[in-house]
Amino acid sequence: MDLNVYKIGGNIIDDPKKLDTFINSFCDCKGKKILVHGGGSIASELCRQLNIKVVMNQGRRITDAATLRVAVMVYAGWINKNLVASLLSRGCRALGLSGADGGCILADKRNPEPADYGFAGDLSDGSVNALFIQNLLDQELVPVFSPVTCDRSGQLLNTNADTIASALAVAFRSYYTVRLRFVFDSEGVCCPGSERHLPLLSRAQYVKLRDQGTICDGMIPKVENALRALEQGVGEVFIGNTCIQL
Amino acid sequence: MDLNVYKIGGNIIDDPKKLDTFINSFCDCKGKKILVHGGGSIASELCRQLNIKVVMNQGRRITDAATLRVAVMVYAGWINKNLVASLLSRGCRALGLSGADGGCILADKRNPEPADYGFAGDLSDGSVNALFIQNLLDQELVPVFSPVTCDRSGQLLNTNADTIASALAVAFRSYYTVRLRFVFDSEGVCCPGSERHLPLLSRAQYVKLRDQGTICDGMIPKVENALRALEQGVGEVFIGNTCIQL
Repeated sequence: MDLNVYKIGGNIIDDPKKLDTFINSFCDCKGKKILVHGGGSIASELCRQLNIKVVMNQGRRITDAATLRVAVMVYAGWINKNLVASLLSRGCRALGLSGADGGCILADKRNPEPADYGFAGDLSDGSVNALFIQNLLDQELVPVFSPVTCDRSGQLLNTNADTIASALAVAFRSYYTVRLRFVFDSEGVCCPGSERHLPLLSRAQYVKLRDQGTICDGMIPKVENALRALEQGVGEVFIGNTCIQL
Repeated sequence: MDLNVYKIGGNIIDDPKKLDTFINSFCDCKGKKILVHGGGSIASELCRQLNIKVVMNQGRRITDAATLRVAVMVYAGWINKNLVASLLSRGCRALGLSGADGGCILADKRNPEPADYGFAGDLSDGSVNALFIQNLLDQELVPVFSPVTCDRSGQLLNTNADTIASALAVAFRSYYTVRLRFVFDSEGVCCPGSERHLPLLSRAQYVKLRDQGTICDGMIPKVENALRALEQGVGEVFIGNTCIQL
């Protein structure tokens, strides 16, 4: 049986027309499916309104206590519940989740060495409670994940949405033929300002393009997650504008 | 079998020590349980930081579009996920929900006559999807509800937490012996500034005290929800500081 794991980010979420197109296609997709969303640009905008400095390092947000609060409010609150309500209104039985809910994705606070990312969560092999999520899928529910997790002490952690999508795809690779789709407003992997998109990408090519600076910023964790998922047995990974071919 | 429905508000949530006491007692409570939370004071504080005017009428918030965004962020995001993570860290398998999730509580936007409350949700007899929530309870999960719902068109709605607690208690009255407990930082129903607490309250007494102004502000919807729940078959309703007797 197939399982489709979709990930959307801010450039889809911020644009009502693109979001609408995505949601319609997602609802039309038959079978088991999971949605993971980011929404960094909305979080950054709220940070600015609250005079909280936005600091990024290699496409990842440095999350101090004030930024964590914004991240949890925007991701697990505003974006997650709006997506769930939209899906619901189109007949898709969406259930919004953070990793804390039911303990479905437990993370560890990232090691502050070599770079301190603050309240950022990292996932490991045992992080995903696949049984719990499987139970939801069996009830014909559609899990919608915000990029928020917690650790075993109850500390909420900001966690890269691409990483979550990847970890979910890997966790279900033994039960399903898993397709992982990073959907965004571009035809594929490229550098901002460039017209080039790559139809196929090997790890060796990635390393080369990253070192040249062609693959940069938020594309780095996206591609790393994609490659890791493939190496761990996920059937297929797309990075690009797959709205029309869901 | 018993079902305990607890509701906590801002005066517990805002105070780390009281919240800690409540969470420990809640975790110790055996059997099926549901937690419903408010958190209006945190939402009001964020409104102030964002220069959004806070307008209340008879203890209920008037929710324009900007206020709705704050309410969803604070209630369904920050407060809900922190409560879930805290409960989880103490071994309680909490699952955070808004009414939108799985379509478990669908509301109608409140009639703008006689007073326009904006994006405020009202519940009716068929609002609660008891089967869905029962399914979660059967899996030994502990639903934690934020006071956010949506209507069938996918519009998120701010919904009084006391009303949600009450509707949940009523929805399960045929399956369980339901105890509904409005827990807050006071020994019972009183007027701000007064030392009087009422050990027992009838509808006739309530109407008299409300008309005198002794029962006022946020206590009005609380008592109305409590009386309605009792009239609809809920076994027992407490209003007061029941932390020590959970």
